[in-house]
Amino acid sequence: MKRNNNMEISAIAQQRIRVITSSDGQDAEDDLAVEEPLEIQLAFAESGKKIKKSISVTMRTPGDDDELAVGFLFTEGIITEKSQVKAVETDVLDENKVIVNLAHDFVPEINSLERNFYTTSSCGVCGKASIDAIKTVSVYQNEDNALLVTKHVIFSLKDKLNVQQNIFESTGGLHASALFDPNGNFITLREDVGRHNALDKLIGHALLNDLLPLANKILLLSGRASFELIQKAGMAGIKIVAAIGAPSSLAVKLAEESSITLIGFLKNDKFNIYSGFDRISAL
Amino acid sequence: MKRNNNMEISAIAQQRIRVITSSDGQDAEDDLAVEEPLEIQLAFAESGKKIKKSISVTMRTPGDDDELAVGFLFTEGIITEKSQVKAVETDVLDENKVIVNLAHDFVPEINSLERNFYTTSSCGVCGKASIDAIKTVSVYQNEDNALLVTKHVIFSLKDKLNVQQNIFESTGGLHASALFDPNGNFITLREDVGRHNALDKLIGHALLNDLLPLANKILLLSGRASFELIQKAGMAGIKIVAAIGAPSSLAVKLAEESSITLIGFLKNDKFNIYSGFDRISAL
Repeated sequence: MKRNNNMEISAIAQQRIRVITSSDGQDAEDDLAVEEPLEIQLAFAESGKKIKKSISVTMRTPGDDDELAVGFLFTEGIITEKSQVKAVETDVLDENKVIVNLAHDFVPEINSLERNFYTTSSCGVCGKASIDAIKTVSVYQNEDNALLVTKHVIFSLKDKLNVQQNIFESTGGLHASALFDPNGNFITLREDVGRHNALDKLIGHALLNDLLPLANKILLLSGRASFELIQKAGMAGIKIVAAIGAPSSLAVKLAEESSITLIGFLKNDKFNIYSGFDRISAL
Repeated sequence: MKRNNNMEISAIAQQRIRVITSSDGQDAEDDLAVEEPLEIQLAFAESGKKIKKSISVTMRTPGDDDELAVGFLFTEGIITEKSQVKAVETDVLDENKVIVNLAHDFVPEINSLERNFYTTSSCGVCGKASIDAIKTVSVYQNEDNALLVTKHVIFSLKDKLNVQQNIFESTGGLHASALFDPNGNFITLREDVGRHNALDKLIGHALLNDLLPLANKILLLSGRASFELIQKAGMAGIKIVAAIGAPSSLAVKLAEESSITLIGFLKNDKFNIYSGFDRISAL
């Protein structure tokens, strides 16, 4: 598969600001997390006819747009394996448009998608007409494993994320998704103004590098755990998700149904387990 | 306009969890912020024919669903005034479906919407087919005012929000949008797992209570300021937005274009102004 790496678009923008304190007010420069729309377009052939179809506009932080595009297609169930993608390219005239060229024998089920949608900074799965259509189904859902992780590994993750998450520290505006192995070794991290985009980039990276399913990895989320993040994790076969923030009720319900261990309020010496208690050893 | 108040659905759910510390592990009960899908349906008559059309499924925290529905319709530009809504009712068979009955002489521009969409916990404006269609246009955009607020009023907002935001404190999982007057007096607050929903509920409340435009109010956001939140604020005519968290680059750009004063990283004794410096007095 060919990859066309993104043009160099910065994830950080400088902005003139005024800093007001109780004693004075001073003009200064500040770093902002860049938020720009990305249009994801599918290109494929059906009955010999070439078809281009925009399927999403997402508000994202520029960078790793190819990973974001294929990760989005995978977690939405539009593609199920890397071989269905021939090439990913950024539009030569528009750095905010990425075109995913599908393999010549692969026709996506566009009609069943019923999508025509725009996703914002924190929105991942959009365009579904009914509540029943919200859930996507993982190709890995029936695979289970005997993954067991000690609590000390979980305690160690937050500090390791802080070390890696450099952009976050300068702007305070980016969410991160990070992968660790069962011994707590850092594997990789993706950041974005949209938490669903950070996770799609991470899963897209895994897809493009033949790392799926991620059944023997730990996913760490820098913020809260919502339904859509657990759904995306499930699509990638992830079995342990740890969030620095709070989970929602539906995130916990989906984690229980999908046999995912969900950890929330992760601190250096304390965390809560919401589902799948048995994968975390107290030793 | 008739309002059919929501059934009593709790915004908090109890969950059995395991709390792991460095010394032990104990089972406990925890409060979770409830996240459930809400389907918003429009009912109207066109050429004597009754039409029902689902226009959005949003992942929201139950409560104030009527405000959320009309707020969403208003910030999306589908309705522009209260008189266009005849009644809002929760489906008798489904507490997760709200039907907005439009006034008999009002036909929404459904074709121009090109929407058929699902919005997640943090997604507000979905369903647009192209980047150009992202921006909605406020009926109040040309109204300006001479609003001036002292920095001491801004300093005071965070503590006032903490006092009001009771649910947030128990679950750690809800975003809040709150309104204050120029003297820093608290007016009202709405909370939701989705920050765009919290703001739509607040603006829906204002619409239903004839408080629009909100040109003489301060909007306080409990988290970060993204493009979509500034857009919604602009739709309601809000001129000062203060966020506890970071703004994104596009949020600042839109605030500048819309002549909105945008404050970020709000603390008790310090904040940053990103646009519209002149509305904040240093005295």
